Amino acid sequence: MNDDRGRLAEPVIDLNADLGESFGAWKLGDDEALTRLISSANVACGFHAGDPLTLRRTCAAAVAAGVVIGAQVSYRDLAGFGRRAMDVPQAELAAELLYQIGALDGIARAAGSRVRYVKPHGALYHRVRTDRAQAGALVDALRSYDASLPLLGQPGGVLAELAAEAEVALVPEAYADRGYLPDGSLVPRTQAGAVLTDPVLVAARAVRMVVSGRVAAVDGSDVPVILRSLCIHGDTPGAVALAAAVRDGLLAAGVKLAAFA
Amino acid sequence: MNDDRGRLAEPVIDLNADLGESFGAWKLGDDEALTRLISSANVACGFHAGDPLTLRRTCAAAVAAGVVIGAQVSYRDLAGFGRRAMDVPQAELAAELLYQIGALDGIARAAGSRVRYVKPHGALYHRVRTDRAQAGALVDALRSYDASLPLLGQPGGVLAELAAEAEVALVPEAYADRGYLPDGSLVPRTQAGAVLTDPVLVAARAVRMVVSGRVAAVDGSDVPVILRSLCIHGDTPGAVALAAAVRDGLLAAGVKLAAFA
Amino acid sequence: MNDDRGRLAEPVIDLNADLGESFGAWKLGDDEALTRLISSANVACGFHAGDPLTLRRTCAAAVAAGVVIGAQVSYRDLAGFGRRAMDVPQAELAAELLYQIGALDGIARAAGSRVRYVKPHGALYHRVRTDRAQAGALVDALRSYDASLPLLGQPGGVLAELAAEAEVALVPEAYADRGYLPDGSLVPRTQAGAVLTDPVLVAARAVRMVVSGRVAAVDGSDVPVILRSLCIHGDTPGAVALAAAVRDGLLAAGVKLAAFA
Amino acid sequence: MNDDRGRLAEPVIDLNADLGESFGAWKLGDDEALTRLISSANVACGFHAGDPLTLRRTCAAAVAAGVVIGAQVSYRDLAGFGRRAMDVPQAELAAELLYQIGALDGIARAAGSRVRYVKPHGALYHRVRTDRAQAGALVDALRSYDASLPLLGQPGGVLAELAAEAEVALVPEAYADRGYLPDGSLVPRTQAGAVLTDPVLVAARAVRMVVSGRVAAVDGSDVPVILRSLCIHGDTPGAVALAAAVRDGLLAAGVKLAAFA
Repeated sequence: MNDDRGRLAEPVIDLNADLGESFGAWKLGDDEALTRLISSANVACGFHAGDPLTLRRTCAAAVAAGVVIGAQVSYRDLAGFGRRAMDVPQAELAAELLYQIGALDGIARAAGSRVRYVKPHGALYHRVRTDRAQAGALVDALRSYDASLPLLGQPGGVLAELAAEAEVALVPEAYADRGYLPDGSLVPRTQAGAVLTDPVLVAARAVRMVVSGRVAAVDGSDVPVILRSLCIHGDTPGAVALAAAVRDGLLAAGVKLAAFA
Repeated sequence: MNDDRGRLAEPVIDLNADLGESFGAWKLGDDEALTRLISSANVACGFHAGDPLTLRRTCAAAVAAGVVIGAQVSYRDLAGFGRRAMDVPQAELAAELLYQIGALDGIARAAGSRVRYVKPHGALYHRVRTDRAQAGALVDALRSYDASLPLLGQPGGVLAELAAEAEVALVPEAYADRGYLPDGSLVPRTQAGAVLTDPVLVAARAVRMVVSGRVAAVDGSDVPVILRSLCIHGDTPGAVALAAAVRDGLLAAGVKLAAFA
Repeated sequence: MNDDRGRLAEPVIDLNADLGESFGAWKLGDDEALTRLISSANVACGFHAGDPLTLRRTCAAAVAAGVVIGAQVSYRDLAGFGRRAMDVPQAELAAELLYQIGALDGIARAAGSRVRYVKPHGALYHRVRTDRAQAGALVDALRSYDASLPLLGQPGGVLAELAAEAEVALVPEAYADRGYLPDGSLVPRTQAGAVLTDPVLVAARAVRMVVSGRVAAVDGSDVPVILRSLCIHGDTPGAVALAAAVRDGLLAAGVKLAAFA
Repeated sequence: MNDDRGRLAEPVIDLNADLGESFGAWKLGDDEALTRLISSANVACGFHAGDPLTLRRTCAAAVAAGVVIGAQVSYRDLAGFGRRAMDVPQAELAAELLYQIGALDGIARAAGSRVRYVKPHGALYHRVRTDRAQAGALVDALRSYDASLPLLGQPGGVLAELAAEAEVALVPEAYADRGYLPDGSLVPRTQAGAVLTDPVLVAARAVRMVVSGRVAAVDGSDVPVILRSLCIHGDTPGAVALAAAVRDGLLAAGVKLAAFA
């Protein structure tokens, strides 16, 4: 975590990525390559992706590689990959999220581990920053399953507020391959500068984020960024090379890689 | 359990019924009435029925009534209510069943209890009596989750064989409202005498099954029946009255009702 | 349709209701009773409800009764019965709606008829009044299938605007069993006076709507209402009796019942 | 078609391949490349694969390329890609297949064409060769939609028998990249020699099949093969190159490529 000057007290960081997002005959992402690069796996739970056999194999591979398993919970939306916001009533959403956490935890147990954290996926990830009912559903699901499980997500917003009230930890994450606005939020994907693809640049940003707690925004200004984990995108061409560059850059800078959970 | 003369060593029996089989806007069964009559609830796990909010409410009601929760696992088949046999490869089926057990156990935990046993549903219930790969998938799922969990089902068949090899308990159940063939198997639903609906007759059969370990077959012969649980059907008209008659008859005969798990 | 004094030029009205909303083992609504009372059936298309065999039987019964078939299209949301608004991108939604219209039309053809109109269901019904992209998707789906098919819905809003631009007819419907606000919109279901259940009152409102083109709002004021069809709710207790009262009241007042399509 | 010596009366053949098998975020197959090589597209209908937007784009591309559209109907089984046989009752299956044909026909109409034939997919393709109820469901679905539509499939079996009785055409297809047994059936995929991958060999087999109506079986014997269409597999590595080799080989041998429908 960052000290009061915005620097990390010790240079340690977690690398997280989405895994287990295949479904039946359809394959997505290079889970094998990513598992070797990360310390925490956000494993799909079957609602936006992830058939049970894929999840079982993904969890077994994560355990074999010493990677921590988290439950990446989503709206029930295979057709939309969880990327379409849905007006799900709070009690209904809480039950759906609880169901997913338990399902993945069962598979993680069978693989010799447990679900160690929860991360919302896709449209839900964004919705819980502003929607009090849906953020409350997420906190409810997590607390009713195991109140000691942390959430992984962007700092700030309604979710952070409700998590703090409920004494649920929200582990802050940042993105080395995404552009930032001067207020510390991400450049929307519809705008120029939203996604960075140069491995050298992205690795350098990652190191600076972790070591100095700062990142250059799109307007050239320098903004503070709070993070205990870096999110690695794995489902785009070149993503594995980018992830490897980030990992190598961090290690070369003397940063220690370690899961937060 | 039965002693060597086919009688129960002590007159104790479990009453089980299927619960949580609504889905979203669609309601099925009178869960509230049944919960008051049974000792074990076979709760759907979302694959043939049971949306997560229904499951959460069903588990909470079961806990409040002191009813034991079991996971009623199924093929992935909402459209067919799990009643259509499917050629699911063993590893795939094992993972799907494991997923369901974990999902329901998560919901049961949130309600203050746990999944205490597993029962296959519908077409899977029948298939595992003869299909070695699918019976193996069920035993694998159960053992990889918690090898101490018992199965609930009909005695005999391939499942019983594989369960014994794996040292998984298979708790035998019988049906007071179904006709039996001289070999101890059920009269198929397509034949006359398959289903009995007279509460007085059904209650008398239940008492005789439990107290004497015997039942009259359709041809008038008397056949032994092994049971630790009686399955109560709840989704047909008059089923709750039938279940109440069975319960009252058993209590009047001095039989103790107690969950097996 | 109404003349310039807000009265119907001739007392003729269509009665529409939602049919085919069962799914597999789950039954919903009394389709048999409703089919005898209405002139137009809004038949589900499998996305919020309606398995194909149910749809086939529903269409066959509609044809036998001389009831016109419309396609009640929805978000892809069986778990939520189409009642949860979803942020579906326009091209994706248009294709999903087109798929549904074609699917039901195939079933209607096999029953000796055709889909004669399209009505959006649930959350989509409300969303297209204000969401230009989703209203555009509906108009696109309809035009690309058969531009001569009318829409059935509430008058006004973005959908009405886009339909007019595309020269697609929007047939206006009203509700005899719902409270109206002074501006002609419906009282939200969360407020008192939203739903009326007295058959005598509801029938009287239906007759006045049709004959005079007016309805009493919740504040006692008198508001004009434009309608060519009355929507009959069929999935609540007492709904069939209410529908029968409306039908009888209209016939007694000399109103002719006739489908609009 | 073949003359009485087992040779084609005129050297004309159709090339068919499966298209539209992506689903939401998941992509499968190189539809763009295949569309340029084939004359008939077996387009998925949403039950084993094919979200509606994919289907709309696939149909538009087929129409642009002059490729005929067929409906590739399946069990309702996204998780298993339609490859798991299911015991679906006849009336239920007939309605599900009818639904799919109509849905794709609606999309084909919107693209300026129509569904011109029907081909069963995956496990259903094999099941209808021996299961009278399921073969009957397929013939029923097709006849109740449009009795003039032909089926595409392997000659022989129960489906061929029922199709003949119902005066539905069954267009015979063969496989240049699959091994044949001496009785004219395919080598099961679990056995050696089931799949051929050498483009030169496969192209030569294709030409001989079409020109001479004969193919070398795995035991070296020469067996007659009846075909009006060759099925091209598109979802394996190297498949597009194989398809191109077959097409080029046929054209070089003076065979004309033409859709059958």
